[in-house]
Amino acid sequence: MAVGDVSMPVMHPVAGVHIGFAQAGVRYKNRRDVVVFELAEGTQVAGVFTTNAFCAAPVHVAKRHLAAMSPRYLVINTGNANAGTGAPGMQAAELSCEHLASLTGVSPQQVLPFSTGVIGELLPVARVQAGMPQALASLAADQWAQAATGIMTTDTLPKGASEQFSVAGVTYTVTGISKGAGMIRPNMATMLGYVATDMAIAPALLQSLLRELADTSFNRITIDGDTSTNDACVLMATGQAGNAMLTSRDDPLFAALLPVLQRVFLRLAQLIVRDGEGATKFITVRVEGGGNTDECCDVAYAVAHSPLIKTAFFASDPNWGRILAAIGRAGVPALDVSKLRVWLDDVLLCEHGGAAASYTEAQGARVMAQPEITIRIDLARGDCVDTVWTCDLSYDYVKINADYRS
Amino acid sequence: MAVGDVSMPVMHPVAGVHIGFAQAGVRYKNRRDVVVFELAEGTQVAGVFTTNAFCAAPVHVAKRHLAAMSPRYLVINTGNANAGTGAPGMQAAELSCEHLASLTGVSPQQVLPFSTGVIGELLPVARVQAGMPQALASLAADQWAQAATGIMTTDTLPKGASEQFSVAGVTYTVTGISKGAGMIRPNMATMLGYVATDMAIAPALLQSLLRELADTSFNRITIDGDTSTNDACVLMATGQAGNAMLTSRDDPLFAALLPVLQRVFLRLAQLIVRDGEGATKFITVRVEGGGNTDECCDVAYAVAHSPLIKTAFFASDPNWGRILAAIGRAGVPALDVSKLRVWLDDVLLCEHGGAAASYTEAQGARVMAQPEITIRIDLARGDCVDTVWTCDLSYDYVKINADYRS
Repeated sequence: MAVGDVSMPVMHPVAGVHIGFAQAGVRYKNRRDVVVFELAEGTQVAGVFTTNAFCAAPVHVAKRHLAAMSPRYLVINTGNANAGTGAPGMQAAELSCEHLASLTGVSPQQVLPFSTGVIGELLPVARVQAGMPQALASLAADQWAQAATGIMTTDTLPKGASEQFSVAGVTYTVTGISKGAGMIRPNMATMLGYVATDMAIAPALLQSLLRELADTSFNRITIDGDTSTNDACVLMATGQAGNAMLTSRDDPLFAALLPVLQRVFLRLAQLIVRDGEGATKFITVRVEGGGNTDECCDVAYAVAHSPLIKTAFFASDPNWGRILAAIGRAGVPALDVSKLRVWLDDVLLCEHGGAAASYTEAQGARVMAQPEITIRIDLARGDCVDTVWTCDLSYDYVKINADYRS
Repeated sequence: MAVGDVSMPVMHPVAGVHIGFAQAGVRYKNRRDVVVFELAEGTQVAGVFTTNAFCAAPVHVAKRHLAAMSPRYLVINTGNANAGTGAPGMQAAELSCEHLASLTGVSPQQVLPFSTGVIGELLPVARVQAGMPQALASLAADQWAQAATGIMTTDTLPKGASEQFSVAGVTYTVTGISKGAGMIRPNMATMLGYVATDMAIAPALLQSLLRELADTSFNRITIDGDTSTNDACVLMATGQAGNAMLTSRDDPLFAALLPVLQRVFLRLAQLIVRDGEGATKFITVRVEGGGNTDECCDVAYAVAHSPLIKTAFFASDPNWGRILAAIGRAGVPALDVSKLRVWLDDVLLCEHGGAAASYTEAQGARVMAQPEITIRIDLARGDCVDTVWTCDLSYDYVKINADYRS
């Protein structure tokens, strides 16, 4: 059961993006499992990908194709990650691109492949190929929500975000989808995320913008600390809104676009946590007063990855001793524990190396009863602030991951 | 339910060590919860302690006392960790030592305090003090097994190891106990470990020996990755066997002693994993062919900490894709995944970046059906080998840690 508001908003079409899908039977029958994005000519595409050394075949191929030419198609399958599949896996990813290219008259290098699902089984590429005509025949502009369902694995719900804004009488759109629920500790991007805008944005700016957006959204969530082999996030700018190509962060258009993109990325990232495998709590870990970003993140991730803290949150137990223990093992050099303070929402839990004098278990229990909780930690060492989002660890996490292949 | 052979062996007394205990009601009534070790005059004591910045009050006090004088008494309580308790916690640890000193006529600095149990609640030191006369009255040489029960928290069984060996007609003894089942990723020592020998060993050699022993035993186990606030391990050499003080590793006596100590330490460490909270599998992660120790350990811990791998082992699912994914995110620079090989016991799972041609699911299922399994990883980068021991992640882990304070 996902935590909090996880509703799908009105998903505004993005001019220049058409989406189609097929039930190709990659792993299961009668489910949407192949999604094709068709991008108008002139669309700029930026991508960020997993840092996992065992990255999947489609990640290798997508990076290579993206470097070579401007993409015109994305093809995404769920049910099979095509990871840990060696040379035959690479060939399968290439064959997938070649087939879509032959059906559409573009170069194979103008197709980016993406896969998600079980690791270590060869992609049944013939099934993906067989689904492509159906996907192409169904291409339409208003199918973002359907695409979000077509990329799900253990996700319990489709994930989307969409906003419109106007500058000088022109309306611009930002719409995106994401997927992921387990093996989530992205390190470049999430499992899969696709965001498009109809604004025209120059390639270099688009790539640096995507990196920045990912670093404050997908790269700040964790469910189980396991960085996936298939993480990929793509930002597309179709240019169909007719603006002069955006090349600089000083452009007023950029100032209007940036907060919209930030909200869309953050929403797509947080939806993954809200739908975390077995999640019953949505937890924000905010570390303030750090000497630098690294130590803020080290502390935040030590807390966010601690199975003891995650199980305590599942039990609605304000076991702040486990939080202190995690902060203490985060490796912050010369940490002065007597200066450190920890809050659960507005409740001061710890100061002077122990429980706050004002703290009562009733206060802790009140906060813990909520489905959404912020752990705020002040390291009292500097001015850096960073935030990570995570969820609790429940019986259902074990159940889902003990059963996943059966 | 603990995994494999976890029986308590014959626990040979160590001349110069007497052990007593009390039911002091620190947290629960009618259980042994205060243990006192009395050490003969001249006993050399070495200690290693947690690196957690939030280390418990007794860890601070024990380190200080150990640096000041030769200990004559250890006092250990379970039920309360006296961690995250600020200045009152430090005072409670000191008061505990002062009271035992006053009862026995030694200096308070000759008493080392240890606590284990729930974090963040003030130690009820009056109860510990009130139990001391009972503990002192019961001092005897042959109570190691009882001491092992008196330091348990969520442990389901007492943990002990004991061996005797002879050199030149003299019989020497090494006997030890340990405790721990959760918040286990020691970084210096385990939750608590106490090992004694009747050999005379010089202080400098004893300390370096303890560090070396801990680094290949307690510092190579993990259950949940959470380094405790209270980890402590003590090695005591009473000198009662009558040998000339051992000062050098070149002494033939040292050659006889070392493998015995290594076996005792490793057994005590592995018993903690075998009794890991909710454990149903005992997993050895052996990384070979590493360029250095750090990368072997990084890979071993990435595998040993992965909730996805641990739940797959709980399910007896040979999901080797999750193993590859964990290796891939371990941060080994320029890892060539095409050269890497992974075995489950004798079964080659992966090579050339994917499943081994010879691998069948039946082979994997056969190994997975066992309660004890070795994951062997060859990085093919060098000659370094390192090994970490861990267990699986089951429903019961969640249950134990969601319920622990209630």
